[in-house]
Amino acid sequence: MSHVMDRLAEVVRRQMTPLCVGLDPRLDWLPRTLTAKHSDRVAACEEFCLRVLEIAAAQVGVVKPQSAFFELLGADGFRILRTVMHRARDLGLFTILDVKRGDISSTAAAYAEAAFDYFVADAVTVSPYLGRDSLDPFLEAARKKGRGLFVLVRTSNSGAGQFQDLCCGGKPLYEHVAEAVASWSKENVGALGFGDVGAVIGATRPEELRQLRRMLPGCWFLVPGYGAQGAAAGDVAGAFGSEGLGAVVNSSRGVVFPFQPADVDWEEKVERAMRRSAAELQVVAKMNRISSEIS
Amino acid sequence: MSHVMDRLAEVVRRQMTPLCVGLDPRLDWLPRTLTAKHSDRVAACEEFCLRVLEIAAAQVGVVKPQSAFFELLGADGFRILRTVMHRARDLGLFTILDVKRGDISSTAAAYAEAAFDYFVADAVTVSPYLGRDSLDPFLEAARKKGRGLFVLVRTSNSGAGQFQDLCCGGKPLYEHVAEAVASWSKENVGALGFGDVGAVIGATRPEELRQLRRMLPGCWFLVPGYGAQGAAAGDVAGAFGSEGLGAVVNSSRGVVFPFQPADVDWEEKVERAMRRSAAELQVVAKMNRISSEIS
Repeated sequence: MSHVMDRLAEVVRRQMTPLCVGLDPRLDWLPRTLTAKHSDRVAACEEFCLRVLEIAAAQVGVVKPQSAFFELLGADGFRILRTVMHRARDLGLFTILDVKRGDISSTAAAYAEAAFDYFVADAVTVSPYLGRDSLDPFLEAARKKGRGLFVLVRTSNSGAGQFQDLCCGGKPLYEHVAEAVASWSKENVGALGFGDVGAVIGATRPEELRQLRRMLPGCWFLVPGYGAQGAAAGDVAGAFGSEGLGAVVNSSRGVVFPFQPADVDWEEKVERAMRRSAAELQVVAKMNRISSEIS
Repeated sequence: MSHVMDRLAEVVRRQMTPLCVGLDPRLDWLPRTLTAKHSDRVAACEEFCLRVLEIAAAQVGVVKPQSAFFELLGADGFRILRTVMHRARDLGLFTILDVKRGDISSTAAAYAEAAFDYFVADAVTVSPYLGRDSLDPFLEAARKKGRGLFVLVRTSNSGAGQFQDLCCGGKPLYEHVAEAVASWSKENVGALGFGDVGAVIGATRPEELRQLRRMLPGCWFLVPGYGAQGAAAGDVAGAFGSEGLGAVVNSSRGVVFPFQPADVDWEEKVERAMRRSAAELQVVAKMNRISSEIS
């Protein structure tokens, strides 16, 4: 069984870009060519997601379906999310299931089972507020199955600092969480030096990203906030370690909905938006330079 | 449209107990009389949940389905959870959907829509780590529909203190969260003086419960940790304000699974366990004394 973060590095290297495609489907934004074809919008949503996955698989190594937008569709949405996760896996994509769960003991174990067994996620996002023992059931399940976690450390919303910046013993709360994540991650390190617990760190504060990169050299970062949320590619430069590894940068709306519902060429627009973001981030991560040095 | 916490007070008063029945169904623990009757265990689970609801509705005012145990069953579980939530509402029960979600902007709005529209929850549990702006979409939806939130403040797991007890500016993180909850709750106060944002506070530290009661006189508490999790009824005495209001005390396994799968009289055992816990908490909340004073 390969280490989860070695598998992540492998797909990022293979596609030569740290871009992660965030799949947040919205019924109102679906292309009309699909809604016209199906009797209900949920079926159109499923086809949309699967077509976006095909386009993504040609260009990136990582996708991050956002559970909320599937849960919103009820039981059908849950079924579609499962189909999407399995298809992504079949396409060779590394899947991060974005659920930000956080609960205790047997409840946490139930969430872990849902994420890793039902949805076959490679990694899952979790919340740290309840402390390490609340993450143990997730970690146990992940380690048994070769999967991983991304723990919320510093989020990308403008009000993130309300609690995350509270100064506790000379440093902000998020640094305490970061140190904990670094220590948990060291418990199971892969061949490339990265542990199986990563950190979610928003792109919206470049200096913090740099500082956290120094603090957590053995942790992969999942970086939201790039694209539609406001951060530019240059803002995430500090997230990468050597060889352009150590971070995946998520874009959702910017690459999945770069079209109007009436556009018949929506697939080309998605393909182009992904290609542009993938290339932009390749440069920022210096993966193009590294590749030319290798070749 | 009545205020959500006035409705909560009404059902608690009507049943004269602050007991909240936590619905965490587990396939392995279902009564054999039900698993034998159905071709699949998911159908048995659904019947089990609905029968437990009927028993609960005769004795308590509040139920708290735990989403994780339904999600574990996939799309079927999501469908059952919806059926359970709607049935609970039809039976006059106040429903707290325990999901502990926490995410930002449109994602938070999607979770809120799922909770309040698809699942028709009266209230939903949320995590504070991302700050107030992450809760705004939940609050907006709740206020539009007359629903409420319970924010994690102090959880009942043994490792809860790892971050929640970190001292920030002379007081622990959980007190900062508690103060924020108190302030958010004041934005929409019902006739009985309680705001629409409650707090999740574990039963496992009686002195903290008392202290938080003093700090948050206008907030309902959702108190986990009583029963199978280890806290006794006496431990939660500090959670109540005057007239026995201000707190609902959750028991899950202790009242929903007080039997062995082979027991044919499982329904009587559930009914007895609920009656015992309901009465025990009625005494602790002094609702029996208040009632006799009124009558």
